[in-house]
Amino acid sequence: MHNKNIRVHSDEVTKATYNALERRHVTIEDIAEIVFTMQSPYNEGLTIEHCIQSVVRVLNKREVQHAVLVGIELDELAEKRMLSAPLQAIIEADEGLFGVDETLALGSVFTYGSIAVTTFGHLDKQKIGIIEKLDTKAGESVNTFLDDLVGSIAACAASRLAHRMRDLEEEGGTFADIP
Amino acid sequence: MHNKNIRVHSDEVTKATYNALERRHVTIEDIAEIVFTMQSPYNEGLTIEHCIQSVVRVLNKREVQHAVLVGIELDELAEKRMLSAPLQAIIEADEGLFGVDETLALGSVFTYGSIAVTTFGHLDKQKIGIIEKLDTKAGESVNTFLDDLVGSIAACAASRLAHRMRDLEEEGGTFADIP
Amino acid sequence: MHNKNIRVHSDEVTKATYNALERRHVTIEDIAEIVFTMQSPYNEGLTIEHCIQSVVRVLNKREVQHAVLVGIELDELAEKRMLSAPLQAIIEADEGLFGVDETLALGSVFTYGSIAVTTFGHLDKQKIGIIEKLDTKAGESVNTFLDDLVGSIAACAASRLAHRMRDLEEEGGTFADIP
Amino acid sequence: MHNKNIRVHSDEVTKATYNALERRHVTIEDIAEIVFTMQSPYNEGLTIEHCIQSVVRVLNKREVQHAVLVGIELDELAEKRMLSAPLQAIIEADEGLFGVDETLALGSVFTYGSIAVTTFGHLDKQKIGIIEKLDTKAGESVNTFLDDLVGSIAACAASRLAHRMRDLEEEGGTFADIP
Ligand SMILES: [Ca+2]
Ligand SMILES: [Ca+2]
Ligand SMILES: [Ca+2]
Ligand SMILES: [Ca+2]
Repeated sequence: MHNKNIRVHSDEVTKATYNALERRHVTIEDIAEIVFTMQSPYNEGLTIEHCIQSVVRVLNKREVQHAVLVGIELDELAEKRMLSAPLQAIIEADEGLFGVDETLALGSVFTYGSIAVTTFGHLDKQKIGIIEKLDTKAGESVNTFLDDLVGSIAACAASRLAHRMRDLEEEGGTFADIP
Repeated sequence: MHNKNIRVHSDEVTKATYNALERRHVTIEDIAEIVFTMQSPYNEGLTIEHCIQSVVRVLNKREVQHAVLVGIELDELAEKRMLSAPLQAIIEADEGLFGVDETLALGSVFTYGSIAVTTFGHLDKQKIGIIEKLDTKAGESVNTFLDDLVGSIAACAASRLAHRMRDLEEEGGTFADIP
Repeated sequence: MHNKNIRVHSDEVTKATYNALERRHVTIEDIAEIVFTMQSPYNEGLTIEHCIQSVVRVLNKREVQHAVLVGIELDELAEKRMLSAPLQAIIEADEGLFGVDETLALGSVFTYGSIAVTTFGHLDKQKIGIIEKLDTKAGESVNTFLDDLVGSIAACAASRLAHRMRDLEEEGGTFADIP
Repeated sequence: MHNKNIRVHSDEVTKATYNALERRHVTIEDIAEIVFTMQSPYNEGLTIEHCIQSVVRVLNKREVQHAVLVGIELDELAEKRMLSAPLQAIIEADEGLFGVDETLALGSVFTYGSIAVTTFGHLDKQKIGIIEKLDTKAGESVNTFLDDLVGSIAACAASRLAHRMRDLEEEGGTFADIP
C-alpha cells in the first residue's frame, strides 16, 4: 500500500499541526514565554515578539510538524482508551522509564544542534510555564507526549535565537535593532 | 492522571513485545539472519545461534520494547484507518520525508553506540532479508514503522556482537569457542 | 581563562574550514560527486552544480565547521605523532571500535534530520568516491576522522536536496527548473 | 597506515582513562556526588557507595573511555597552546556556540537512553558540584571538554541507577537492600 503518488501537501500538514496544538490548549504565546524566560538573560533587547517569530519558524519545519502530529495523536488515543494493553496503561500513567515521548521530541531537537539538546534536557527537569501546567493537569487528560513536544519546540526556538544573537553581534547589533 | 503507582510489570511488557512481532509475522530468526549477513564476514566462527542470542538480549531492553510497542501500534492503527487526517494518509503512504519511524527506531539504536547507528543507516538503504519483504508487502498491510524497528533490532544485535568479538580476541578466542 | 570577549569572527572560521579541507586534498567537487551519486536516481534534473551549491550551504554551518576543524586537527596531530599514548595508537590504527570519529560527524548529521542519519550510515559502509580513497590511503597519512567528516557533509547535502526536491514538486517543478 | 593488527588492549585504555581524570583533578567521588544529588530524592536507601559503583561501571565502557581520552587531550593541547588557529582560540575561550564538547559527551550519553540525555542537559545548565568548579577555574587551565565529560559520566551513572531502581521495585526491594 505504498502509494507514494498520493501525497499530503505541506500546507495541510502545517495547518493540522496548528490545529492539534490549539485542540490541546497550547498557544504559540505559551511556548514563546518559555523561550523568553530561557533566553532573555543572554540576549539584550530580546522581546516576546522575537520569541513568537522564532517559535513560528520552528513550527514550519517538517520534522517538527510530524513529531507534533504523532505525539498528540498518541495522547488523544490514550485519553479515549483506544490503545492496546499494555501500551494504554504505560502512556496513561506517564511512566518514568517510558522514554518514547523524549525520543520523539529529541528527533526535532537534534536538528537545532547541541544548544537545543541541553536546553531540552533542562526544560525536562525544570518544568517552566505551560510545561508545568501540562505535567500536573488533573482529570482525564493525558499529556505524556505533549509536555516533551512543547519543551522540544521551545528548546529549538531558543537555540535559533542564540545562533541569531551571535550573527547580530558580529554585525555590531543586538535584538533591539530588530523590529 | 499521573498514577505512578499502577505500573505495568516488565514481564508483561516483554511478553507484549514478542506477541506484537509475532502478530506482524516477524520472527527472531528473521532478524537473526540479517545480523548474520552483516556480521559473519568480520566474525570468525559466528553462527546463526549466536545471532539469535544477541537478538534476544536486545529485545530484553526496555527502550527497545517500548519502541516496538509504539511503532507496531501505529502501523496497526493505520491499517484499521483509525488515525486522524492527515497522519493517516502520511503513515499509510509511507511518505519518504516522514521521519518519525526512523527517529523512533534510532532511540534504541543510540543505546548500542556508533556502530549500531551506521549499521542502521546501511540497512535503511540496503534492505536485507525480511526488511525487503516488509518494504514491498502487498495489499492492505502498513509496515511504515515495522521495517525501521526490525532494522534497529538487527543493528543493535550486530553492534553487540562486534563489541563481544573484540572482548573474545583479547582473551585469545573467537566465536567458535562459544557454544 | 574563559575570556568570552575575545571571539573568533565567523568569516575566519569559514576560511579555516575551507583551508583545512584543501590541505587534506578534499575538494568541494569530490564531496558533490558523492551527493550526486546518492541523489540523482531520485531527483529529476539534478546536476553536479546543484550538488556543489548544497555542499557549500552545508559548509557554511557553524556546527559543521567546528566538527571539520576538530577532526582534521586530530588527524594531523596523529600524523605528527603529537598525541599522547594510547590515543596516538588508537587513532593512527583507525581501530574499528573507536567511535569518536563517527560521533563527531553525527553531531552535524543530526542537524539535517533522519534522512541525513541513514545516508551517513550507508556511506560509512559503502565507501563511495573520495571516501574510498581516504580509507585506503597509503603511507603516513591518517584520515581516521576525515572519512567520516566527508561522509557527514555529503549526507547533509543529500538530505537538503531531498527536502528541496519535495518543495519543488509541490510548486510543480523539478531541479531542471533551477539554474 | 591502517595497521589493524597492532591494537591497544582494553586494560591499557581503562588505565589511561583513570589517569587522565586524576591528572585533571577529577575523582570518582566528585562525580558520584553529582549522581547522589540528582538521584537521592527518587531512590530510597541510595548511598554514595551505590553512586561510586555506578560511576565505575560507566567508566568501564569503551565509548565513554574513548570520549574521555579525546576530550582531555584537546583540553591539555589547548592549555599548552599546541592547537592551530582558530581552533586554539575557540577552545581556549570556551565559546558558547562551540558545540563539539557537548557532541562528544552526548555520544556516551545516548548509550544510556533518554533519561541520561535529559539529565545531561540539566547538568549543563545547573552546574552541580565539581562541574561548577571546573567552569569557573581560574588561571591558565582549559576545561572546555572536561565539564561536559564529567556531566556525561554523571548523567549515565544516574540513568543506570534509575533503571536499576525500577528492577529492584519489581522484586519488592530498594537500594537499602543492597550492600
Ligand atoms: Ca512526557
Ligand atoms: Ca519506514
Ligand atoms: Ca573513521
Ligand atoms: Ca564545555
